[in-house]
Amino acid sequence: MSADQLWSNGTLARHAGNVPRMRAVVLDDHGGPEVLTICEVADPEPGVGEIAVAVEQTALNRADVLQRMGMYPDPRGREVEIPGLEYAGTVAALGPEVTGWSVGDRVMGIEAGGCYAERVVTHARQALPVPSAVAAGDAVAIPEVFLTAWDALVVQGGLTSGRWALVHAGASGVGTAAIQIARAIGARIAVTCSAGKAQACRDLGADVVLERSPADWLAAWRDAVPGGADVVLDVIGGEEAERNLHAAAIDGTVVQVGLMGGANASVNLGLLLTKRVTWIGTTLRSRPIERKIALAQRFIAEVNPLFERGLLRPVIDSRYPFERIGEAHSYMESNANVGKIVVDIVD
Amino acid sequence: MSADQLWSNGTLARHAGNVPRMRAVVLDDHGGPEVLTICEVADPEPGVGEIAVAVEQTALNRADVLQRMGMYPDPRGREVEIPGLEYAGTVAALGPEVTGWSVGDRVMGIEAGGCYAERVVTHARQALPVPSAVAAGDAVAIPEVFLTAWDALVVQGGLTSGRWALVHAGASGVGTAAIQIARAIGARIAVTCSAGKAQACRDLGADVVLERSPADWLAAWRDAVPGGADVVLDVIGGEEAERNLHAAAIDGTVVQVGLMGGANASVNLGLLLTKRVTWIGTTLRSRPIERKIALAQRFIAEVNPLFERGLLRPVIDSRYPFERIGEAHSYMESNANVGKIVVDIVD
Repeated sequence: MSADQLWSNGTLARHAGNVPRMRAVVLDDHGGPEVLTICEVADPEPGVGEIAVAVEQTALNRADVLQRMGMYPDPRGREVEIPGLEYAGTVAALGPEVTGWSVGDRVMGIEAGGCYAERVVTHARQALPVPSAVAAGDAVAIPEVFLTAWDALVVQGGLTSGRWALVHAGASGVGTAAIQIARAIGARIAVTCSAGKAQACRDLGADVVLERSPADWLAAWRDAVPGGADVVLDVIGGEEAERNLHAAAIDGTVVQVGLMGGANASVNLGLLLTKRVTWIGTTLRSRPIERKIALAQRFIAEVNPLFERGLLRPVIDSRYPFERIGEAHSYMESNANVGKIVVDIVD
Repeated sequence: MSADQLWSNGTLARHAGNVPRMRAVVLDDHGGPEVLTICEVADPEPGVGEIAVAVEQTALNRADVLQRMGMYPDPRGREVEIPGLEYAGTVAALGPEVTGWSVGDRVMGIEAGGCYAERVVTHARQALPVPSAVAAGDAVAIPEVFLTAWDALVVQGGLTSGRWALVHAGASGVGTAAIQIARAIGARIAVTCSAGKAQACRDLGADVVLERSPADWLAAWRDAVPGGADVVLDVIGGEEAERNLHAAAIDGTVVQVGLMGGANASVNLGLLLTKRVTWIGTTLRSRPIERKIALAQRFIAEVNPLFERGLLRPVIDSRYPFERIGEAHSYMESNANVGKIVVDIVD
């Protein structure tokens, strides 16, 4: 990787002259947290319809760990690999033909990569305004997990008032977002979690908390909610896949957003047929830009107001300075967090 | 089972007096085709909102074979078990509060059971008028397979013009309906079938015909349609399940309507996630009445006109008189049919 590289709109160009530079984590190698080294690269510049964001915080996601290990590359395939899926900060510059944003506006959002950096470029209509009720330094804990949980539960799963959601890893970032969203829209929610995190899930408002292992969560779930789950949100897969089909209600939906427990699953498809289950696999990262924008615009209309009304709040487990982002990764891999691990790019 | 039994609206009552009687196949035992014996039972009578149909034809479905063997009971759990999922005939009597039908109207439809009989009772809004372009004696070959194929491909799978469907068992009743529906709406369709049935599938209009076994249909499919299938309609399951995920396009849908190849499947869920596949399990038979009615009304509006315009036609393989219905079952189990096996209840 050369320091004389500038990219915009995904294309990489070389410049001989002086270009503005930013600090960013660039992955020259894949492996343990030690590969997360900060160096200087050229600022990205906004193209038509894009804005540049002065990033104040980024936050960690499980996908970042996989990307660091070389198992989940940036789908955009850029030459300089900067990880990081979400950002919060202020609008630093507007590309041509941008409306609706002014320099200095508080902004947050998700990208397919590039957010472990002082500056990121995004489509103006994919960026989310930071709700005024949320502290600027906490906003970065919103985009990835609330977009993921809301998209999975409500947009794809069809969760509504009165219905039951079952969400695995209730104390994770996505889990803590899911609990709050379900309550805010009048739905009921059960979560699975490891034993030490049960109280945190209850405190967030989970109606039912099921310890996952070695306990038999499925039996406890059946006792608690005999009618089954209208929507199951699963980040685990593997051996949970068939249990999810058992846990689903008639006409229920299983939304698979992760495979932390493994991709290989043995399932009894008789459950799929007799219950008329819909099993949806999904990721945000690989979607085409028009669908990311559509989701962002719906989120602004339907979810941002829930933050303004205090019905939702970001859940932050811990904060790390940019220079210690490797420690933040190690901490995420220890599975001790409840909610988001935030990285402050600026002091 | 007593001959003094009369049922209406799913309830069974005993009558001492003379009640009208009909011939019907009653399953006193489960097993081979020999358990399909015709006897006399009381006529069913239409309740509020229902019509009685003088059945002229019924037709065979794979589910009938499973029910005969005791593996797929009538979900209504009636005391007298009369199999048979579809009928065609004329309206014989109207229950209270029925509008839109007159005695003598040509009618066809599906039921959760009871159609191997001279008379069947159905909800007036679940019954379908026979398209005038279809010969009365052939109409029975429409309801189950065209409702199933259209519901799976279009209503649940979202198949539209320009998109690709992949349908297993292209020469089956559902397959022959699927080929015609896909062509009628401007979609493209590939089918798998056994070697001897390929020409029949081509004659019906399949764009691509793939021999299923021992040939490697997946490799041939990838060569033919590199972009993948927007909708996969599968009646097989088992070892085809993971191949279906491989065959699906990005954002594709797999609709599982049967498990003739077995319910147990080992699948790589990574395919589900990375392609954002939706995998839907479904059956018509167990749905609540309001959803059956909604589907019927939509079928009348969207599919019956395609029969009137000659774009769809029932595909009949063979006809058996009522007294030889056991032979019809044996023939279905030989897997030799292309299209529907019809049973004439009246001569």
